[in-house]
Amino acid sequence: MTLHRVSISTAVEACRVLEKLGYVEAKPRVGYFVRGPMQAQSRVRGVLEKDAHETGQRIDPADYVGVHERISVTLARGLQNPLKVDLAGAVCAPALYPGAALRDNMLRILRARSSLYDSAPRPDGVRKLKEAISRFSVSRGMHVDSDAILVTHGCSEALSLALRAVAGPGDVIAIESPTYFGILQVIESLGLKAIEIPTHPHTGISVDALEFAITHMGSIQAVVCMPSVQNPLGSVMPDAMKAKLAELCEKHDIAVIEDDTYGAFLPSPANSKPVKAWDKSGNVIYCSSLNKSLSPGLRVGWLIGGKWHKKIEMLMYAVSRHREEMSQLVVADFMAGSAFHRHMRRLNALLTQQRTQFVEAILKHFPAGTEVTRPEAGLLVWIRLPGELNADRLFESALCEGIRICPGSIFSNTNKFTDCLRLSYGMPFDARIESALKALARLARET
Amino acid sequence: MTLHRVSISTAVEACRVLEKLGYVEAKPRVGYFVRGPMQAQSRVRGVLEKDAHETGQRIDPADYVGVHERISVTLARGLQNPLKVDLAGAVCAPALYPGAALRDNMLRILRARSSLYDSAPRPDGVRKLKEAISRFSVSRGMHVDSDAILVTHGCSEALSLALRAVAGPGDVIAIESPTYFGILQVIESLGLKAIEIPTHPHTGISVDALEFAITHMGSIQAVVCMPSVQNPLGSVMPDAMKAKLAELCEKHDIAVIEDDTYGAFLPSPANSKPVKAWDKSGNVIYCSSLNKSLSPGLRVGWLIGGKWHKKIEMLMYAVSRHREEMSQLVVADFMAGSAFHRHMRRLNALLTQQRTQFVEAILKHFPAGTEVTRPEAGLLVWIRLPGELNADRLFESALCEGIRICPGSIFSNTNKFTDCLRLSYGMPFDARIESALKALARLARET
Ligand SMILES: Cc1ncc(COP(=O)(O)O)c(C=O)c1O
Ligand SMILES: Cc1ncc(COP(=O)(O)O)c(C=O)c1O
Repeated sequence: MTLHRVSISTAVEACRVLEKLGYVEAKPRVGYFVRGPMQAQSRVRGVLEKDAHETGQRIDPADYVGVHERISVTLARGLQNPLKVDLAGAVCAPALYPGAALRDNMLRILRARSSLYDSAPRPDGVRKLKEAISRFSVSRGMHVDSDAILVTHGCSEALSLALRAVAGPGDVIAIESPTYFGILQVIESLGLKAIEIPTHPHTGISVDALEFAITHMGSIQAVVCMPSVQNPLGSVMPDAMKAKLAELCEKHDIAVIEDDTYGAFLPSPANSKPVKAWDKSGNVIYCSSLNKSLSPGLRVGWLIGGKWHKKIEMLMYAVSRHREEMSQLVVADFMAGSAFHRHMRRLNALLTQQRTQFVEAILKHFPAGTEVTRPEAGLLVWIRLPGELNADRLFESALCEGIRICPGSIFSNTNKFTDCLRLSYGMPFDARIESALKALARLARET
Repeated sequence: MTLHRVSISTAVEACRVLEKLGYVEAKPRVGYFVRGPMQAQSRVRGVLEKDAHETGQRIDPADYVGVHERISVTLARGLQNPLKVDLAGAVCAPALYPGAALRDNMLRILRARSSLYDSAPRPDGVRKLKEAISRFSVSRGMHVDSDAILVTHGCSEALSLALRAVAGPGDVIAIESPTYFGILQVIESLGLKAIEIPTHPHTGISVDALEFAITHMGSIQAVVCMPSVQNPLGSVMPDAMKAKLAELCEKHDIAVIEDDTYGAFLPSPANSKPVKAWDKSGNVIYCSSLNKSLSPGLRVGWLIGGKWHKKIEMLMYAVSRHREEMSQLVVADFMAGSAFHRHMRRLNALLTQQRTQFVEAILKHFPAGTEVTRPEAGLLVWIRLPGELNADRLFESALCEGIRICPGSIFSNTNKFTDCLRLSYGMPFDARIESALKALARLARET
């Protein structure tokens, strides 16, 4: 009360919060006492799992039944503390996106109109945008008619629609291991079952292991993968493997759902085509978005539905109707010329530099034996801590210092990655980032 | 070939299309012959259901397995012909929406910004909009904290999220009969089962019948209803029935999913509260949107999730992340002052006038014995044709004359409404609308 000049009720409430977090303990009729560090840590662990309490909100796993309790609790917990440095979000710093140019585009489009939103645009997406995406696809080595494209609310909606189109409750979906946690949530929320296929930091999903699973594990309905710049590993599949994957799945009538969110981050995208380029029969559903590459505030994504095109179009109409028009027009303008390609060249050059500095700092500060990926593109590194270090615990103690990371546990339904974490190097490397990495390294040692 | 100056291949293709549509028949080695009208009609029926073929695209029900084939085929068929008059869409004419004011709002917001979309807004919705919705809710007789609101991609996404939160594959959902076809599609696509509860054109869903179903039909997981201005009937439940519905469902632990899309169309919204106003335990999920009332090009809807708030928030984050920001800000500005209320007063006055003219024209032109609702609000009428008249056939023949209607069959999984149709009076009543109604009346007689 004296030190912080607060009232008695504030002080008591603060003690209660600290008690919940395990930093102090209440002794009956005596008062609150600071706990020893190890006691605090183990208590913190329990807090994360059972009753995390910081801003006064209890996190109850029961609130998230059906949406992957474990992942949901971690995501919700990550939103509770005030953040100083966010290394968890797979996103670049705002200054790295062309926000001013997009604003100018929108102003220009608006000035030419007398009215807004007074009628509904086409449910499949604004024509101009679909044409721009069709042309952009050429730079990814694909020739796609604009009519084959459906504009979605980001890649999230695209993935969710794709899964709903090809599989129903109880069906088995092969996924990469580790994989992007959003996919695990969508799979669970649809009552689907996931089977995890080993995935290599350099070459991506193991097609051999997938073939083995297909032959020995009974029917698999679809495989969801990120052949170009996998999240979290950053791996890029060799062309031969992509061709093999397309062929294998076609032969066994297994739908391929390809997430190419990070394809635009490749140094020369046309040289590393998506699996969709090997698709002969419409068996690959291609999903992508501009929310990582062009700007996180957009909700523009798209998919190429192959033989499920009509079904997905109808499903999308049933669950969300058409999309807001202005953001589509703004992006269409930006993609129609060379602006998008210039932006990506600049962004990728910056990211390459940030990656080098980021990885060096990790190797310098983290405990000896720490392994870290050096992906050829994207904005994420995957780290394996040495010894028995637990990344869930690190997540919690980092959060208490205002640093958010992604613990490896949310990238799998197994416990294979509890010693891993995913960090984003999307923000320019500076003293603030370096000191966050130092703090993480210190906490890792203390954990 | 001579008459239309076309090539032989064009002429043959035209004959093939006409054959598909049932207007001509091919006699081997002799040529194409015009069919008698009755033959043509019954063939057309088959076309609609099995292989409609007009603009050259085959509609194959197999494309829509899992998204309600029958409804999907009808919706897809409705998009094939060039339209002169659309009486199917539940939407007002563009001029009736405040498109110019919304544009000005957006311009003003944009001018004050230097950048756009360079970071993601809050996933639960822009604060300003949530606050505006919270204040607006008071005019619907509800007191809702802005934190209890989630902004969605229209009411469609709200309904879909609500169903996913409360029910899983195989669960039984009670619905109104007839009901809005989008709900039937979402229910089927989620592997849920629908049980239809009789619904009255004046008083809405029969709470007695619902109670009977609950007692005798085994477990019902949720009930989806539109207590205020039902689609398609336009019915408004009496307050006593709403209270009873809320109590009944709470007692039996059945979630109420309330679709209040047309609530804002009520003459005095505060006097006819939603069922949510009687909710004591968070058992009612309230869904609404501005796409009918404020502007169809928006995708702004929202829900109040009650005890499922956190689950729905997480599910929404998994399937579509946050929403585009500008449209939310534009609407927030419009709703913050009195502009929205003034708009709705004006719109409702116009709709009342249009409804009178529209219903009079129907009574004047349609065959004797035609029944038509006179809803107290909204933009839809529900018509029952006399005798054995089939509305699916009328849908098809009207489409061939460039008029689109909604056949009653898409509002139910039963065949109780095959002699019904839903028409929208959202467009100002003029000679074009009147002649479309005359044409429909003529076709009804011919069918
Ligand atoms: C691999 C991957 N797919 C999909 C998404 C979601 O993309 P969007 O923001 O376009 O919905 C993400 C975002 O983190 C991602 O990393
Ligand atoms: C009763 C009802 N609910 C929901 C919807 C879908 O609303 P939205 O356009 O906001 O997704 C409609 C649109 O036709 C409707 O009539």
